Amino acid sequence: MSVNSFGHLFRVTTWGESHGPALGATVDGCPPNVPVEPEMLQVWLDKRRPGQNKNTTQRNEPDAVKILSGVFDGKTTGTPIQLMIENTDQRSRDYGEISQTFRPGHADITYHLKYGNRDYRGGGRSSARETAARVAAGGLAREALKALAPGIEIQGYMTRMGEMTIDRDAFDWDAIETNDFWIPNGPEKAAEWEKYLQALRKDHNSVGAMIEVVARGVPAGIGAPVYGKLDTDLAAAMMSINAVKGVEIGEGMEAAKLKGSENADEIFMGPNGPEYSSNHAGGILGGISTGQDVVVRFAVKPTSSILTPRKSIRIDGSPTEVITKGRHDPCVGIRAVPVAEAMMACVILDHILLHRGQIGENQGTIG
Amino acid sequence: MSVNSFGHLFRVTTWGESHGPALGATVDGCPPNVPVEPEMLQVWLDKRRPGQNKNTTQRNEPDAVKILSGVFDGKTTGTPIQLMIENTDQRSRDYGEISQTFRPGHADITYHLKYGNRDYRGGGRSSARETAARVAAGGLAREALKALAPGIEIQGYMTRMGEMTIDRDAFDWDAIETNDFWIPNGPEKAAEWEKYLQALRKDHNSVGAMIEVVARGVPAGIGAPVYGKLDTDLAAAMMSINAVKGVEIGEGMEAAKLKGSENADEIFMGPNGPEYSSNHAGGILGGISTGQDVVVRFAVKPTSSILTPRKSIRIDGSPTEVITKGRHDPCVGIRAVPVAEAMMACVILDHILLHRGQIGENQGTIG
Amino acid sequence: MSVNSFGHLFRVTTWGESHGPALGATVDGCPPNVPVEPEMLQVWLDKRRPGQNKNTTQRNEPDAVKILSGVFDGKTTGTPIQLMIENTDQRSRDYGEISQTFRPGHADITYHLKYGNRDYRGGGRSSARETAARVAAGGLAREALKALAPGIEIQGYMTRMGEMTIDRDAFDWDAIETNDFWIPNGPEKAAEWEKYLQALRKDHNSVGAMIEVVARGVPAGIGAPVYGKLDTDLAAAMMSINAVKGVEIGEGMEAAKLKGSENADEIFMGPNGPEYSSNHAGGILGGISTGQDVVVRFAVKPTSSILTPRKSIRIDGSPTEVITKGRHDPCVGIRAVPVAEAMMACVILDHILLHRGQIGENQGTIG
Amino acid sequence: MSVNSFGHLFRVTTWGESHGPALGATVDGCPPNVPVEPEMLQVWLDKRRPGQNKNTTQRNEPDAVKILSGVFDGKTTGTPIQLMIENTDQRSRDYGEISQTFRPGHADITYHLKYGNRDYRGGGRSSARETAARVAAGGLAREALKALAPGIEIQGYMTRMGEMTIDRDAFDWDAIETNDFWIPNGPEKAAEWEKYLQALRKDHNSVGAMIEVVARGVPAGIGAPVYGKLDTDLAAAMMSINAVKGVEIGEGMEAAKLKGSENADEIFMGPNGPEYSSNHAGGILGGISTGQDVVVRFAVKPTSSILTPRKSIRIDGSPTEVITKGRHDPCVGIRAVPVAEAMMACVILDHILLHRGQIGENQGTIG
Repeated sequence: MSVNSFGHLFRVTTWGESHGPALGATVDGCPPNVPVEPEMLQVWLDKRRPGQNKNTTQRNEPDAVKILSGVFDGKTTGTPIQLMIENTDQRSRDYGEISQTFRPGHADITYHLKYGNRDYRGGGRSSARETAARVAAGGLAREALKALAPGIEIQGYMTRMGEMTIDRDAFDWDAIETNDFWIPNGPEKAAEWEKYLQALRKDHNSVGAMIEVVARGVPAGIGAPVYGKLDTDLAAAMMSINAVKGVEIGEGMEAAKLKGSENADEIFMGPNGPEYSSNHAGGILGGISTGQDVVVRFAVKPTSSILTPRKSIRIDGSPTEVITKGRHDPCVGIRAVPVAEAMMACVILDHILLHRGQIGENQGTIG
Repeated sequence: MSVNSFGHLFRVTTWGESHGPALGATVDGCPPNVPVEPEMLQVWLDKRRPGQNKNTTQRNEPDAVKILSGVFDGKTTGTPIQLMIENTDQRSRDYGEISQTFRPGHADITYHLKYGNRDYRGGGRSSARETAARVAAGGLAREALKALAPGIEIQGYMTRMGEMTIDRDAFDWDAIETNDFWIPNGPEKAAEWEKYLQALRKDHNSVGAMIEVVARGVPAGIGAPVYGKLDTDLAAAMMSINAVKGVEIGEGMEAAKLKGSENADEIFMGPNGPEYSSNHAGGILGGISTGQDVVVRFAVKPTSSILTPRKSIRIDGSPTEVITKGRHDPCVGIRAVPVAEAMMACVILDHILLHRGQIGENQGTIG
Repeated sequence: MSVNSFGHLFRVTTWGESHGPALGATVDGCPPNVPVEPEMLQVWLDKRRPGQNKNTTQRNEPDAVKILSGVFDGKTTGTPIQLMIENTDQRSRDYGEISQTFRPGHADITYHLKYGNRDYRGGGRSSARETAARVAAGGLAREALKALAPGIEIQGYMTRMGEMTIDRDAFDWDAIETNDFWIPNGPEKAAEWEKYLQALRKDHNSVGAMIEVVARGVPAGIGAPVYGKLDTDLAAAMMSINAVKGVEIGEGMEAAKLKGSENADEIFMGPNGPEYSSNHAGGILGGISTGQDVVVRFAVKPTSSILTPRKSIRIDGSPTEVITKGRHDPCVGIRAVPVAEAMMACVILDHILLHRGQIGENQGTIG
Repeated sequence: MSVNSFGHLFRVTTWGESHGPALGATVDGCPPNVPVEPEMLQVWLDKRRPGQNKNTTQRNEPDAVKILSGVFDGKTTGTPIQLMIENTDQRSRDYGEISQTFRPGHADITYHLKYGNRDYRGGGRSSARETAARVAAGGLAREALKALAPGIEIQGYMTRMGEMTIDRDAFDWDAIETNDFWIPNGPEKAAEWEKYLQALRKDHNSVGAMIEVVARGVPAGIGAPVYGKLDTDLAAAMMSINAVKGVEIGEGMEAAKLKGSENADEIFMGPNGPEYSSNHAGGILGGISTGQDVVVRFAVKPTSSILTPRKSIRIDGSPTEVITKGRHDPCVGIRAVPVAEAMMACVILDHILLHRGQIGENQGTIG
């Protein structure tokens, strides 16, 4: 029972504040003999890292991950793995005003009400910097998946940013890693998105986003009824990311509009097992994977830290106006893409381990 | 680590299959000295109970709850409370075909692939009957909330059923309990919905739904960063309900379309503490309650069991067509309303207990 | 986090009071496809059952176990298994005095101080009757072990009862099940023990006991550092049994007296893997099994319920003398034998599942 | 479910190997607003620290603890606290032989069999160095206890070392901190113990020990039935310490020899509540504290690393003789004293938090 941990058997506890000396992830339950080098994790941290282009915050952090335990001679030992990322670019500044004021849309006021003591420097524990630790843990999960369940591919991409949406008819997996927005469309579309975002930034504004994460090659039969469902754990994983306000599996909220005749995916026997006419289910039935693509979608609210003045109060109850200066993402959803991929990797690994523990191997066969 | 349990301190484990002798909930962590009589739980079970009107399944179950432990002299003792509901209307029938066939959109195929042994009678463990146990546990949670945090009101209602939507301009809290659909609108609207659903039923079809649950009077400061967030736990709770495909907090998926200037709720000092200009956040910031209404919304897919034939396969891999006869809800979302209320009650109680354990009392004050 | 549960993956939650309508165990995480019939569990309950001979309490309970869920067509399905035992011999009586008085050595006073509401009928939740539920769960664990890790044998026996001790030079495994005390010695020794105990009973007294449980055939490599150690979990399992005051692994408390040259078990290569010159370690090194016999020993205090008057107080603080009438075991340690075997079975199964989840198979080989 | 964690609400996960870059404890669930400075933790680490006198290992580690998160402005914030201790004296050496050989009595062979990959440098994860992290966490628990439940004193001391025993008739609390053995006797006794231990060391031998830990001022009513008992958790906590083979509460294993008339502690009404004629129970009845001293005792086996040659095998199965050179404690029990105190502090704090979460305050009153 630890409110800063997630996972059943692959258990990740993150720790650390935005402007403290370091942050990290304590990972317990990673199987032994998984080849891991810091560079294998670093590649994912670099993907999430701020300060890389003008569409994200200008804070400059190397986000260099150190492995302090649990890896020996380049392989995991089965003991806890401590992944540490030191903070380096904590600009010294006067926190006088911010320590007394609550920024609208931020966790400032709820942390104060709950704890009576918050690290107000850069958002403290509620900062999106916490997600760097998740990305490191996700990199580890990806290596373990490679060793234990090869063939699983996890890819996230944006599908919406305010008024901008992707063109699903021109969906291109290869385009995702070629633009700043992780969209599955070509450079023209990316240019449009950039123009839109820069206009918002100049207007001292920010915008929300929708992200989709797909896991291909997930074996059928992982997950569990009734509360440890694969979709339950994915929903929790995504909702736990900063600023997320909605999570969908497969058809998602749109399912409310459908008829039964439209929604159910018909089943056929294919050469390698069951195949389906469609994937409204998002690869999960009754909390257990079908073997189809697992499809998760979530919405991120617009960054609350904007230069447009907003009404608020101080700790003493007096009214004030807040203009959040500083180095903030105009669309925090962009950097949520690698974070969501990391969470997906952790959840799928966790359920593969859980399935091995409970069942051993898939026991039901068809055909 | 129990995949059939939920909750941190108020921990509910449900057990039982649709057509076994009984089902129930084992509740550990209910505080002592909460007045509880079976009738206090029965009222909620009666709300969820099937066979009450023509808009839900015609299976007739009394759903009478028995308290087998943990309550003495009409008060909880602090020890585990066993809530049992005996199944009575398990129609005897020939399961020959259904035991060999996978119904599209159902958990039949995934349970088979995972476990290699499923109770195929009426859906077994994946049946919506499992939710009766949640409703019983939720009734208990409501009584504990009354004792520990009086003034919290939890109310669910449908907001959409296929093409039908509620009229938010005519929102009427008092209307909810007066119609079969739990909609916050008057009898004309309910008549429209009924006409729509009966037409679908005659057409051998079913339909999805959207449900909203609101908790009023939740104290500020409950919840926790970073994975035990109040919204994380609510998302998991709702996603764990059968057929749910999406969960939203406050603005939900729509947040992706908003600008920062539109989304953040401004803060003012009111006579009893902070007040907000709006509630886009759904009462939760950084995983912790603000003191505003906690607003959760979710979508339920259309019942997969329909009389319209759907293509599928048998265990031996041979093709077949499935027509699901039997007593099924044309819109399973209707009966999801009391289930969602129960889950909300359990999650809020759990976080109130957790907050007491970690903090004692709200420690931050304003003004 | 449930204080009435134990186990990581094979998770048992017991519920119920001595004089309520029923008690039982909710078991989550039992692998599917384990053949289980009620009679397979009943045999262990019959072993623990009271009223069978003059050396245990005369309360007469059939202790008939019902399987309410999780088993279909004679095999486990992988879903929660509810094992219920109805109470039948709850003699109606006047509880006026006992409800106001604290029996020395009993949990009466601590339950009152903690909860302010206790079920005082027969000890309520703190009664040894709770262990019937453990025995049922242990029976299930034994069947799962048979299916998953055949060849494991678990046997408990008494080694001391007050001044009586077993003769280790005449240790006879086959004798254990032939006498009322589960001692590994012949009928002469058992007759001595019986004479001793009957004299104590006539003297209105009771006596403590020491029990040893041995698991043979446990594979090497199960367990885990550092807090989920096999010995940690065994110690917790045994200490959780009513009236237990000490737990030992292998050499136990005597290890304090030994020198390093005496204690370490030397290692040799045998035909089937490593062998050891001795088993001071009790089959566990660093929390992980060696493949030798796992040896656990524990002490049970004398029954506190005796006919000899003892000084105590009432709830109102007034002094009183307590003579505990009723049907009590003169040596509660006797019936602790099957309970300890059940706990051993549960812990070993749990660690085998955990090992499969974390490692898959033993990965290190020797020779 | 994390095998490297302990605690329900005050949850400690330790990580790190003996010869890796660092080790530490991730602590989740520490209440906010507890004053903490590194020096408050350092004092306990200094007590456990090796290399301080000739009776412990000569490895020289400063064991300087760094607080990386969860503390702001000298007070805990309620978020995870990362306590890191860097390893500095990892002597460079040739591990060729030790990497291929299993030391008798060590976890070398079981780690190898389980994981197939072990950090053999200095014992890796199974080294007693891991306990430094526990001591740091225990220091934190002590500060939280001071803030939440002032008046609790936790003190450990040795009661036996091989043939040496303390003189209980000359028990002197104040003497404990004045000698190298933490014995509650004067300098003459300590001199005897030292002479005994130095003789063993010169003889290339080692010896076992018995340690007792007493917590005074623990409020009545903490703990819980049936598996989350205070004594269950204490037994698990002590058994999880390296080399521990037995744990006792109060009368311990000796309870097996007692009669009921001798064992039960009689109850009287004192000026401030119930008082007891004796404390055979060790301050715990039915898993819940009575308000008396909580008394735990445990035995530590002799250090297996000795200079006397012992027979063993290599990974390839070939026979060998092992002489463990290096810097080892001749009696590892000495340094177990501060470790056990730390575990006691963690368990008691945890149960106080749990009690607050479940009950709020003690609810039962007497008199």
